[in-house]
Amino acid sequence: MPKVVFTPSGKRGEFAEGTSLLDAARRLGVDLDSICGGRGICGRCQVSVAEGSFMKHGIVSAAANVSEAGAVEARYRAKRDNLPEARRLGCQAKILADVVVDVPAESQVHRQVVRKAADRRPVEIDPVVRLHLVDVAEPDMDDPSSDFRRLQQALTSQWGLPPVTASLAVLAGLQKTLRAEGWRVTAAVRHGTELVGLWPGFVEEVYGLAVDVGSTTVAMHLCALSTGDVLTSSGLMNPQIRFGEDLMSRVSYAMMHPGGDREMTAAVRGALTDLAFAVAGEAGVPVDRIVETTLVGNPIMHHLVLGLDPVELGQAPFALTIDGSVDVPARDLGLPGAPGAYVHVLPCIAGHVGADAAAVVLADGPQDRPEVSLLVDVGTNAEIVLGNRDRLLACSSPTGPAFEGAQVSSGQRAAPGAIERIRIDRETLEPRYRVIGCELWSDDPGFAEATAATGVTGICGSGIIEAIGELFLAGVITAEGAIDGAMAARSPRVVADGRTFRYVIREGEPTLTVTQTDVRAIQLAKAALNAGVHLLMERWGLQTVDRIGLAGAFGSHIDPLYAMVLGLIPDCAPDKVSAIGNAAGSGARIALVSAAARRRIDEVVRRIEKVETATEPSFQRHFVECLAIPHKTDPYPLLRQAMTLPEPPAPGEATGRGRRRRG
Amino acid sequence: MPKVVFTPSGKRGEFAEGTSLLDAARRLGVDLDSICGGRGICGRCQVSVAEGSFMKHGIVSAAANVSEAGAVEARYRAKRDNLPEARRLGCQAKILADVVVDVPAESQVHRQVVRKAADRRPVEIDPVVRLHLVDVAEPDMDDPSSDFRRLQQALTSQWGLPPVTASLAVLAGLQKTLRAEGWRVTAAVRHGTELVGLWPGFVEEVYGLAVDVGSTTVAMHLCALSTGDVLTSSGLMNPQIRFGEDLMSRVSYAMMHPGGDREMTAAVRGALTDLAFAVAGEAGVPVDRIVETTLVGNPIMHHLVLGLDPVELGQAPFALTIDGSVDVPARDLGLPGAPGAYVHVLPCIAGHVGADAAAVVLADGPQDRPEVSLLVDVGTNAEIVLGNRDRLLACSSPTGPAFEGAQVSSGQRAAPGAIERIRIDRETLEPRYRVIGCELWSDDPGFAEATAATGVTGICGSGIIEAIGELFLAGVITAEGAIDGAMAARSPRVVADGRTFRYVIREGEPTLTVTQTDVRAIQLAKAALNAGVHLLMERWGLQTVDRIGLAGAFGSHIDPLYAMVLGLIPDCAPDKVSAIGNAAGSGARIALVSAAARRRIDEVVRRIEKVETATEPSFQRHFVECLAIPHKTDPYPLLRQAMTLPEPPAPGEATGRGRRRRG
Repeated sequence: MPKVVFTPSGKRGEFAEGTSLLDAARRLGVDLDSICGGRGICGRCQVSVAEGSFMKHGIVSAAANVSEAGAVEARYRAKRDNLPEARRLGCQAKILADVVVDVPAESQVHRQVVRKAADRRPVEIDPVVRLHLVDVAEPDMDDPSSDFRRLQQALTSQWGLPPVTASLAVLAGLQKTLRAEGWRVTAAVRHGTELVGLWPGFVEEVYGLAVDVGSTTVAMHLCALSTGDVLTSSGLMNPQIRFGEDLMSRVSYAMMHPGGDREMTAAVRGALTDLAFAVAGEAGVPVDRIVETTLVGNPIMHHLVLGLDPVELGQAPFALTIDGSVDVPARDLGLPGAPGAYVHVLPCIAGHVGADAAAVVLADGPQDRPEVSLLVDVGTNAEIVLGNRDRLLACSSPTGPAFEGAQVSSGQRAAPGAIERIRIDRETLEPRYRVIGCELWSDDPGFAEATAATGVTGICGSGIIEAIGELFLAGVITAEGAIDGAMAARSPRVVADGRTFRYVIREGEPTLTVTQTDVRAIQLAKAALNAGVHLLMERWGLQTVDRIGLAGAFGSHIDPLYAMVLGLIPDCAPDKVSAIGNAAGSGARIALVSAAARRRIDEVVRRIEKVETATEPSFQRHFVECLAIPHKTDPYPLLRQAMTLPEPPAPGEATGRGRRRRG
Repeated sequence: MPKVVFTPSGKRGEFAEGTSLLDAARRLGVDLDSICGGRGICGRCQVSVAEGSFMKHGIVSAAANVSEAGAVEARYRAKRDNLPEARRLGCQAKILADVVVDVPAESQVHRQVVRKAADRRPVEIDPVVRLHLVDVAEPDMDDPSSDFRRLQQALTSQWGLPPVTASLAVLAGLQKTLRAEGWRVTAAVRHGTELVGLWPGFVEEVYGLAVDVGSTTVAMHLCALSTGDVLTSSGLMNPQIRFGEDLMSRVSYAMMHPGGDREMTAAVRGALTDLAFAVAGEAGVPVDRIVETTLVGNPIMHHLVLGLDPVELGQAPFALTIDGSVDVPARDLGLPGAPGAYVHVLPCIAGHVGADAAAVVLADGPQDRPEVSLLVDVGTNAEIVLGNRDRLLACSSPTGPAFEGAQVSSGQRAAPGAIERIRIDRETLEPRYRVIGCELWSDDPGFAEATAATGVTGICGSGIIEAIGELFLAGVITAEGAIDGAMAARSPRVVADGRTFRYVIREGEPTLTVTQTDVRAIQLAKAALNAGVHLLMERWGLQTVDRIGLAGAFGSHIDPLYAMVLGLIPDCAPDKVSAIGNAAGSGARIALVSAAARRRIDEVVRRIEKVETATEPSFQRHFVECLAIPHKTDPYPLLRQAMTLPEPPAPGEATGRGRRRRG
């Protein structure tokens, strides 16, 4: 019998002459995709047999050792333009003699895809939902088995699936769908066991939504499930904002108003529904082709989307209702999609460290690296993960809203007109800055004209970080965080402000300043963040970390160097500190297309050591030490190799608040 | 170590002194019930240790060989009056030396109960849902596992259950319930895998609903799940009647009115909700203690309750959407109950033979008997099952509504004032009768006064059967079904009616008669029914059946003897023909309390041979033969041994409609 070798797997076997390459691949367990099951419709089983005759893998293979393309392949080629000349449909090419067959990556169900440069790691496709074209037997008076049973039997005989289950929502449309195109249907089967969607005739692609529910914004990506490609993305303000700006005020709302949790649940589900219709509409995708959604969010968003009362999350000991990942019918959340579509919610790590942090871990993969990674996702709670392939720790720290420009006298949300970059001359103490929406610096010609429309309206979070960092580097702010009144002699921009001083960035309408109170607000926020980090490092016995990833919008906007100068994060080689983008959203997209990734993050989350900052006695000590800029005892030697920092205070010197506890 | 023998199981083992009898039983796999898990609260683990000292099962046992009753048992005795003196709580009695322990039937989880004489077979308890009292660990800042995970762990450590699942509906109330009585809760766990209900503190009993959805009426029983006892029962008219009296007119409504199926679904679900509140209210059972429902009905009711469009059931080949049993969350049907409660719908046998017929089989158990049983459930479709332990066949026959008093000139529904029994003097041809609501016969003194309130208003189905049977026995109606005009000479009650004759039962207001058209209507209905039976008998090659069970309301009202005289059913020894009551409802109750029964009926239904009368060529032949009274060719010899029948027509004689086809 002819021998067949499949590459790159190297799997080989002998098959009767006339066996199709698809059948041979299936019998050998070669990963070769197919939706139509060998009918020459889907084109997913494309393979290559090299031209000519050649010796390879110990056999003499030849392109002529498989049957020539016939009518089915010609028809496919005529209808579709995605079958290159060198390719064959595996279901049509029959084995005639020994042959080596290459399965290209795009013909494999399980494969790694790198979608764009921003993706730091390839996305691994391991479909949760697969499509199967089947021809279902018609009912017969003498065989009164139900339509669903005959569909199950077709999936078993034509695809080897065990009898699938189906919810009533799927069964409700079954009979009409089966009859619409002569008992030929495409079935979407989840995890090989449950029918979640059914369409007449041949359907080539189904879609999924990756959703990141933040306290402030809800972001959604519509992805093709076979490739992981993002077709459209959209975002909305979280409509829960009308119940409270930050998480704790929303929990308070639930506590104070009976049924308040249900109001907030309805609000966020409504936003998800609006977004789903928006992204599907923009991509021209029928909503009923959406068969799967992955969802991440902090614990309070997680609970509110799922319809779980979040009040326990607002008070010690911050008990989650459920921490493991959750699969719930999309219809139970009121979301549109295929009738049997599911929402998979990633696991929460702890009462303050949510499914969004789990998604960051999934996207960045610290558990796969030998070096120690520190991952920080800054919001009103910073979620912090520290770990490598041996160990993982996580905590959250209550940073408050200062980093988002709140509690800062000239602060504002990141929006056109907000100062986002600033430099202060070390000698003259004169500032130059850039605002969101304009590429020019304030001392470039034409800046006034270019910003005429927006004005210069305030300072956003990243601008505050840089302003205080620059003032520290220029010596205007001391390591203790005091605006040095002596500098008033050197520059008219340092002016008395009652018993303290302030620095004036810009006179005019509005006047933008950095006050002593502003510096204290940022000090408190950054101390909370870095104290959380140090708590984890101390728990592990680490002095430094090998790399730092700053996740989320804030992490993307701040300059990592200034984050270190101010001491938001611990010392690290500057080239090892980077923004990792919307890692929570990336994690949701990875989980959307990969059952293996879901299993992996479930397992990883279970072994993360959770540290509760609220009750950890040493957190307070770290907090006090972290109030100093950059830190009371750590001189940031790695940062100093890259830039000049003011000298750290000598041991024994007073450092503002708190007393020194260790040498 | 002391030896312990449990009776009646005979299981034995050796245990350390001080081991409780409950622990010993669990380790040996002895079926000993418990809800509270050994806390001395539930009293389910009662056992007996005989007084004094005695030799038994090879050991010397003594009542004194277990510890004396202590404070916990005293407290239980003081609070509850169900612990007889001779009984001990198995969880409190500790093994001191060798002992023989008897587990009474009521302390076994799996047991057979005979509830009342009407139950022909014992009900076997094999709980689908079990209660488990657990003490759940409180949350701890240093162990941020979720409330649900700690509940899972408690069920595992205290009850040996694998991690249970729970729907969002159950999770939504979890945190409040856990905290309501100090982290002590009673969990209702379905099939040992899914949490369906949770209550603070100790809960002793949960409840289930057994529902029979008929085209005309919906009947519901509220049962205690640990005993199968019926607490309350109630019934309602099926509100779908406003969309059509019979099944086919409801299917027509669905065909003609877009969304009509959904209207009918909403109507019947509304009735189920009303009934559930009614039976729970009457029994004083909180609705959230209802954790399970079983539901049976004909295929069209089955589809409409489940929200499946029934139109395919209205036309050949009568394809069901789904035939297997279905478990669906009660909330998906809008039904009240515990948040995770399920509805288990029994399997359908074929497009015309529904879950009600499956329930009849479950209740009667023909598959367990050596003799051949014929089970007939008469409605506008008669569902017919024929079988024994070797073979089972089923079909349905379109009898139409004549048996319900429709299509009969003086017919009416069974209601007070309707004639239900009638006797006709063989000589004088004078009738005497009884009406529903009165124990007297019409020739008893005081009949007129006793029926003054209701009057004599019509003839119900069973009355029609007896009237025509009696007229046949008196010679007024021939074997061909003709009212013999020659009889007009013998009695003024036989009068000309155009070219045919009629028999006057009663003159007055209203005048009640049996017309030739009435006889034909009953002949058509009974021929359809008996032809279905004969079709199954012929398929199997049977000449007679060993016993006949008449199910349902009609089956309970008609006199089996007249059913044979008229030939609704085949010949059988009269003492082997009986009403089997509301067997469909009984089947639903059996399935409610027994997982084993559900598995059994699923398996039995799969092997029933389905025969489709609509396409079976010989059905028409049987129909013609069955038009004669009692049958064209079968002289009913077994019936003749019990009573005198008119001589059957001689071979070759014409018999009304149709031509003779076999000798």
